Amino acid sequence: MSSASWEDLAADKRARLEKSIPDEWKIKAVPTEGSVIDLPEKSGVLSPSEIKITNSSATELVAQLANGTLKSVDVTLAFCKRAALAHQLVKCAHDFFPELALAQAKELDTYFETHKKPVGPLHGLPISLKDQLRVKGTETCMAYISWLGKRDTSDSILTALLRKAGAVFLVKTSVPQTLMVCETVNNIIGRTSNPRNLSLSCGGSSGGEGAMIAMRGGAIGIGTDIGGSIRVPAAFNSLYGIRPSHGRLPYGGMTNSMEGQETIHSVVGPIAHSAQDVKLFLQSVLMEEPWKYDSKVIPLPWREAEENAAQAKIAEKGLNLAFYDFDGVVRPHPPITRGVEIVRSTLEKNGHTVAPWTPYKHAFAVDLANKIYAADGSTDVYKHINASGEPAIPNIKDLMNPNLPKADLNEAWDAQLQKWNYQCEYLDKWREWEERTGKELDAIIAPVAATAAVRHNQFRYYGYATVFNVLDYTSVAIPVTYADKAVDRKLADYQPVSDMDKAVYAEYDPEVYHGAPVAVQIIGRRLSEERTLAIAEYIGKLLGH
Amino acid sequence: MSSASWEDLAADKRARLEKSIPDEWKIKAVPTEGSVIDLPEKSGVLSPSEIKITNSSATELVAQLANGTLKSVDVTLAFCKRAALAHQLVKCAHDFFPELALAQAKELDTYFETHKKPVGPLHGLPISLKDQLRVKGTETCMAYISWLGKRDTSDSILTALLRKAGAVFLVKTSVPQTLMVCETVNNIIGRTSNPRNLSLSCGGSSGGEGAMIAMRGGAIGIGTDIGGSIRVPAAFNSLYGIRPSHGRLPYGGMTNSMEGQETIHSVVGPIAHSAQDVKLFLQSVLMEEPWKYDSKVIPLPWREAEENAAQAKIAEKGLNLAFYDFDGVVRPHPPITRGVEIVRSTLEKNGHTVAPWTPYKHAFAVDLANKIYAADGSTDVYKHINASGEPAIPNIKDLMNPNLPKADLNEAWDAQLQKWNYQCEYLDKWREWEERTGKELDAIIAPVAATAAVRHNQFRYYGYATVFNVLDYTSVAIPVTYADKAVDRKLADYQPVSDMDKAVYAEYDPEVYHGAPVAVQIIGRRLSEERTLAIAEYIGKLLGH
Repeated sequence: MSSASWEDLAADKRARLEKSIPDEWKIKAVPTEGSVIDLPEKSGVLSPSEIKITNSSATELVAQLANGTLKSVDVTLAFCKRAALAHQLVKCAHDFFPELALAQAKELDTYFETHKKPVGPLHGLPISLKDQLRVKGTETCMAYISWLGKRDTSDSILTALLRKAGAVFLVKTSVPQTLMVCETVNNIIGRTSNPRNLSLSCGGSSGGEGAMIAMRGGAIGIGTDIGGSIRVPAAFNSLYGIRPSHGRLPYGGMTNSMEGQETIHSVVGPIAHSAQDVKLFLQSVLMEEPWKYDSKVIPLPWREAEENAAQAKIAEKGLNLAFYDFDGVVRPHPPITRGVEIVRSTLEKNGHTVAPWTPYKHAFAVDLANKIYAADGSTDVYKHINASGEPAIPNIKDLMNPNLPKADLNEAWDAQLQKWNYQCEYLDKWREWEERTGKELDAIIAPVAATAAVRHNQFRYYGYATVFNVLDYTSVAIPVTYADKAVDRKLADYQPVSDMDKAVYAEYDPEVYHGAPVAVQIIGRRLSEERTLAIAEYIGKLLGH
Repeated sequence: MSSASWEDLAADKRARLEKSIPDEWKIKAVPTEGSVIDLPEKSGVLSPSEIKITNSSATELVAQLANGTLKSVDVTLAFCKRAALAHQLVKCAHDFFPELALAQAKELDTYFETHKKPVGPLHGLPISLKDQLRVKGTETCMAYISWLGKRDTSDSILTALLRKAGAVFLVKTSVPQTLMVCETVNNIIGRTSNPRNLSLSCGGSSGGEGAMIAMRGGAIGIGTDIGGSIRVPAAFNSLYGIRPSHGRLPYGGMTNSMEGQETIHSVVGPIAHSAQDVKLFLQSVLMEEPWKYDSKVIPLPWREAEENAAQAKIAEKGLNLAFYDFDGVVRPHPPITRGVEIVRSTLEKNGHTVAPWTPYKHAFAVDLANKIYAADGSTDVYKHINASGEPAIPNIKDLMNPNLPKADLNEAWDAQLQKWNYQCEYLDKWREWEERTGKELDAIIAPVAATAAVRHNQFRYYGYATVFNVLDYTSVAIPVTYADKAVDRKLADYQPVSDMDKAVYAEYDPEVYHGAPVAVQIIGRRLSEERTLAIAEYIGKLLGH
């Protein structure tokens, strides 16, 4: 290790990041409050055609790149500029490498000119990556100061396969120290804010990704989710995000907190502006047969039959859905309850069945997840924090405590057994619902978090998201609406069921949260990506997205 | 617990087992050496039609049961008699319950008479179960004296689904104390012997199952495999046995050693007289959609397209296979080397390509498996052993040592990470083979064990089997030939590469092993059951089975 102080190392990293942004892409005055989401278009840095490119969907872009209407160099340059603006406005990047991106784009354009065809389904598309994915030649620090200064000598498996499919990489986005927080703050770049309201959080741990994609600094972003870390940033930024089940996409060769912890697997997945773009990503990766590279990936190509089965039900207005707006542990804020109701009533108006779901032992599942996340007494994360002398961020103090006891191996095995039993019991509930109604249950609609995009330092309860990590169910976060002080009134007589419930409910303030994005998640059983995404896409369409 | 001594409890269990066999099914003189495999047919207990029934394949039986040619009561009675004979001859049962079986069979016959159709694809078929599966109303002791005397109040998930498919349960078969041994011996029933030679082992841990199916005491048997426990008994008894990849068949609700240990998963699978019967079992279970009951099961129905792809290659003589007969750690005995060569040359004669495979770091994989199996310092298994005061069997002394240190949780996580990395490296080798040859690698042919059916107390090295548990590859054990003192000569100049190698090689004695079953395993990548089984079936046909 260098003998420099952690402050010096962090300052050096910031300076290098600053230097990676060309002067002509710099913004003079960076606002400190309100929304910055429209500023890139007003900045003068982007040409009208670059604005048009970056406002296009990934699906539109790959079509135009594949037929030669667009060149990757032009698309990449446009996204590089916008990513640079995004970082200046909300501090969402850890590493920015426009030269590498443009070099990649140029190679792809040359390939296209020579062969008159794209290299793959993502030919020339700029993709933004959470700072856990390795890209040869770039820096992965995962928010640990002790990791700074090392360049990756190889790609992660997912990065390599995306590269084969034609993707271009331009930026690595910010994460919270330890990754185990649903906000994004660390000792290197500080805090990543919500582009729609700088007083609110972008979510976490894929918070840099949520902010970057909201600002359209990448056509699609890649996050990871061990307790809500894809869905929460998607929800807080009015985006689509999928938590695929473990084993669908390759995690091999990525960095992680608590590597080797396999009781609750972290999974990798895309964050995007539409369900269609999410599908483009999944299909493109699966076409590369990731199971031939990463042993944890199941040999399961994209199943059109599964997607078609969902489409058929949609066409005949025969979806059978369940919903809940309270998990029995923490009451969601009024905007969230309204969000679930909007989705429920919209589906019902369109002829589908939506019946109440009784959350089964969610408190137990969240307690179990807490135990599992802290099973090693935070040995792993504190090792990486302490290696540089940097302090722990305040947000992890409740979750990651260096004085926690480490679980004995037989206790850890017992937790695994408890998880399996719980998963099987949840399957029983799912089957009982089907036996009782005589119909297949297609999905469950539920809050992603108890709050709309949360005020900084106020994220307390990840139970709504985490229960589906424990269950390993497929879940797609979809944007629904925005908090509205005119209608989202606090229940005057609300009686909290616990201290956590009390604290979360007390945080709600219609003025503060006005305009904050509100989302729900659409949940299917394990490895139901095709069906669940088709339903999520349909709901999005009904909601006018 | 009762205050009775462990000896009394074991004696009581033996007495109950003895009592479960009707007097008219008893054998007067039980041989103490040689082969007993033909004795059931000569015993006079079975009628000619019962001999015919029990000598039929499961596939033939379900066809006749489904068209009404056979009644389940007759089939079940025939198998009950033969199972009773098998237990008397080689001591392979832990619980025998002909009354329950016949009651189940009667119900199925009544159903058939009323509805003129079978309840499911296994209608009326008697199945034998390793003593880890729960059957309502029967006893599961898993060879621990401390567990004796408790009746199960519910079925395991697999048992329940087989019951739905029409299977009849008649017997629970013997296992070694702890399950972690490739022979079958415990303090309750003593030792289970090989029906073809009582001086040889039936293998383990599904050894009772191997012996029972070899004796045709069940039409299909169910075993489990964490380090070879299906394949070794199949190999030692000239049977087919599949180790499906984890997540293909439901393990939920079964008992196990070291429950909650998920670094190397134990898997459940069938042992049978043919690949066709193995396929019947897999297809029947998958038709019941086990993933709706057990969260660990992947929603992957039987993939005919995969099977057809293999059949097409077989038809055009285009299989591309690899083989090895030495893993670099322990040299197999001459009959095994010859077994691999028989398979290799037969395939080559039939127009297929069979090239040498270089085993990749098998010693590392076996060491890693050893660490994982002993990770809890044997806390779990010794708890169950010590609860009754029974002694540990000699065979576990090397493997299970109560003085071993327990792994720290971070060490256990590191082992999981090492396993994943190793698995990915093995995939690299598989892909590199394909890139080098320009052809898909369809399967690897390898020994199951270093020895033919081993002499009692001489099983030392499970590496040939275990490496594929570490990799979680699909593997099918198939019978090839028998050891032959006339041709299987010891290499006079063999130089051992390690102490283990030396000890294993020294054990070979052409006279002792003459006639012992010799098998190989056919290995496919993870979750390749359809392809690998199709190839195994084809090889079996070429070998004249």
